[in-house]
Amino acid sequence: MTFTFDRIASAGAARAGVLMTPHGRVDTPAFMAVGTAATVKALDPLELEAIGCQMILANTYHLHLRPGDEIVRSLGGVHRFMGWDGPMLTDSGGFQVFSLESLRTVSEDGVEFRSHIDGSRHRFTPESVMQIERNLGADVIMQFDHVIPGQSVEADARDASERSIRWLVRCRTEFERIAQREQGTGNRGPYFQGASVPGSLFPVPAQVLFPIVQGGIHSTLRREASRAIRSIDDWLGYGIGGLSVGESKPDMYAMLDVVNEELPTDRARYLMGVGFPEDLVEGVRRGVDMFDCVAPTRMGRNGTAFTADGRVNVRRAELKADPRPLDETCECSTCKRFSRAYIRHLFVADEILGLRLVSLHNVHFLVALMRRSRAAVIDGTFDAWSRDWLARYHTRPTPVS
Amino acid sequence: MTFTFDRIASAGAARAGVLMTPHGRVDTPAFMAVGTAATVKALDPLELEAIGCQMILANTYHLHLRPGDEIVRSLGGVHRFMGWDGPMLTDSGGFQVFSLESLRTVSEDGVEFRSHIDGSRHRFTPESVMQIERNLGADVIMQFDHVIPGQSVEADARDASERSIRWLVRCRTEFERIAQREQGTGNRGPYFQGASVPGSLFPVPAQVLFPIVQGGIHSTLRREASRAIRSIDDWLGYGIGGLSVGESKPDMYAMLDVVNEELPTDRARYLMGVGFPEDLVEGVRRGVDMFDCVAPTRMGRNGTAFTADGRVNVRRAELKADPRPLDETCECSTCKRFSRAYIRHLFVADEILGLRLVSLHNVHFLVALMRRSRAAVIDGTFDAWSRDWLARYHTRPTPVS
Repeated sequence: MTFTFDRIASAGAARAGVLMTPHGRVDTPAFMAVGTAATVKALDPLELEAIGCQMILANTYHLHLRPGDEIVRSLGGVHRFMGWDGPMLTDSGGFQVFSLESLRTVSEDGVEFRSHIDGSRHRFTPESVMQIERNLGADVIMQFDHVIPGQSVEADARDASERSIRWLVRCRTEFERIAQREQGTGNRGPYFQGASVPGSLFPVPAQVLFPIVQGGIHSTLRREASRAIRSIDDWLGYGIGGLSVGESKPDMYAMLDVVNEELPTDRARYLMGVGFPEDLVEGVRRGVDMFDCVAPTRMGRNGTAFTADGRVNVRRAELKADPRPLDETCECSTCKRFSRAYIRHLFVADEILGLRLVSLHNVHFLVALMRRSRAAVIDGTFDAWSRDWLARYHTRPTPVS
Repeated sequence: MTFTFDRIASAGAARAGVLMTPHGRVDTPAFMAVGTAATVKALDPLELEAIGCQMILANTYHLHLRPGDEIVRSLGGVHRFMGWDGPMLTDSGGFQVFSLESLRTVSEDGVEFRSHIDGSRHRFTPESVMQIERNLGADVIMQFDHVIPGQSVEADARDASERSIRWLVRCRTEFERIAQREQGTGNRGPYFQGASVPGSLFPVPAQVLFPIVQGGIHSTLRREASRAIRSIDDWLGYGIGGLSVGESKPDMYAMLDVVNEELPTDRARYLMGVGFPEDLVEGVRRGVDMFDCVAPTRMGRNGTAFTADGRVNVRRAELKADPRPLDETCECSTCKRFSRAYIRHLFVADEILGLRLVSLHNVHFLVALMRRSRAAVIDGTFDAWSRDWLARYHTRPTPVS
């Protein structure tokens, strides 16, 4: 069993590809639903599978604190723990611990922080994070990185980006050390199933490590980081981090253009923590293959639905007797079965099914949007299709929210 | 389209039967999941169908207040509103309005009450409730009745029981009047699909009215009520109300024995608002065919699971790394996929999927218990099976809750 990424079509910078993992295939571009605490909030893995979501994400920070990555490992790894047998990715916790402003101290060695749950002290280093992600056992694991606010000045951004690269080297060393130790002792988690495949990129085929390109909104730093990371190894995929964290959309898109030029075209690119429908389409236009974001489930729980005509706040009084689905063009299980009036009723009555139905619809919306983008790349219509889609999206009538 | 009830086997007082409705078949004995506000809390209709739940219940009181029964009717009736295409029953709101101790006044005409949601004034009479249940459009609708606490003295119980019988006569008259009016004007809801079938019990085949036997814990009153109700019409089924409302279990079982003797053996019996696993088995032993209760979903949301070895509180610390399912003998989707450790994690982390999984397991537990009872009645082993089941249930080891 091994990992591969194949680009099967392209249209300008946009690409259609296939990421293969020991847990199956991911057709790219792809949106990954976020299962922060080993559950995509309010949804069942079977529902995600049914809407064609092929890969999901879990959070190292949250699972390390609760229930603990060693418990997850003892129960067979995060796939078995949460009942998801498809491809999975874990982030490194970098984003979370650097968000704990007053609760953490950063050094070259790593980050000391206090749990947001109980105030207990913890320490993340490149080495400890590799062990935690090993214990969780996702297919793709992300390096531990230094994340900074989106508007940081160049000096701060350079400091964090260069530290992230030094930490990448330590992550890679530890990743290989753990693999060799576990192969040597036979102390393998239940997820450690593949034999080492000669010629594969990594000695442990059951997991693959992705680096993360940082550099804030500074083109020079993004270029330098991309080149430095490429000089360390021939990675299967590259995370693009530190975007959608407070910078403007033009700044984000400009950084994607820079990184698109610098990263190898035959490797996967994963834009971390993004995003909203328009960001996904803009990202695909700039060569991104993978996305993740909590927006569809968070907005779903708040009663805001994505539709082709903008967002809908499902609590609005004028939906009270509206027999239409949330989105008349949508093929999801929510829209095929339920009216806006019913979904409004569920939210007004504080019924859990309401959160479920809108969360499912929103995740489906992004998964289907990426499926549509992929088809357009393959059939050669992506440029026109995406321009039309964005034009309609940006000129939509006053959103009913 | 019409309604029928056929008893296909019996074992002592226990019976196996088939209730046919315009929305399909119900194999009895059956547990009906409760969808108070047109949603079985935390669950999707597809999940209920998958576990073999054939009939569900909705609440007239709640739907009249929110979103309003006329809105439900305008959207095609409660089946279409909530996406449930199987058999449905609505209660009459009697239980709810009589529970509003300080918010209601009772007269021979009906009950004036204030909404628990916004304090607004409303009035339920036998006539208004028939119209509301008509608007909701369930298959089986219950008469409006006068419900009293389980320990009420005989004089109070007689007063309420006799009023309930007078209200039954008014319900029946109004039920027929509405049917004739709607047939006459062609003003039919979307659920009004059946032609009147000659020889059927009721002129409106799309709905059937069940009376409710009251009488508290007083055998004489239960006997008198049963006989009086039978003298009014040859009902397809009989509700048994006012039990599991504070009286002792022996009192409840004694009343079931009395009613079992008095009601016709070839008609359905529905024990309202009951119950817990042992109550269902005791009820079947005393000739009951149908049950409903919020317990499985309410307990599911609180993190208490029914198991063959008693209840399990899923939050308990010793489940932290327990790889076993909630119930090792259970065939439900929760138990086939998830460990106690994972479900505990979901509850500790306040994740909605936890409520979903335990609610689903608990409803499945009661549905499967009734399926097993039915099989035992049919194959002639019910008496021994139910004795063994109850003995094990009552001598189970200290419940882990």
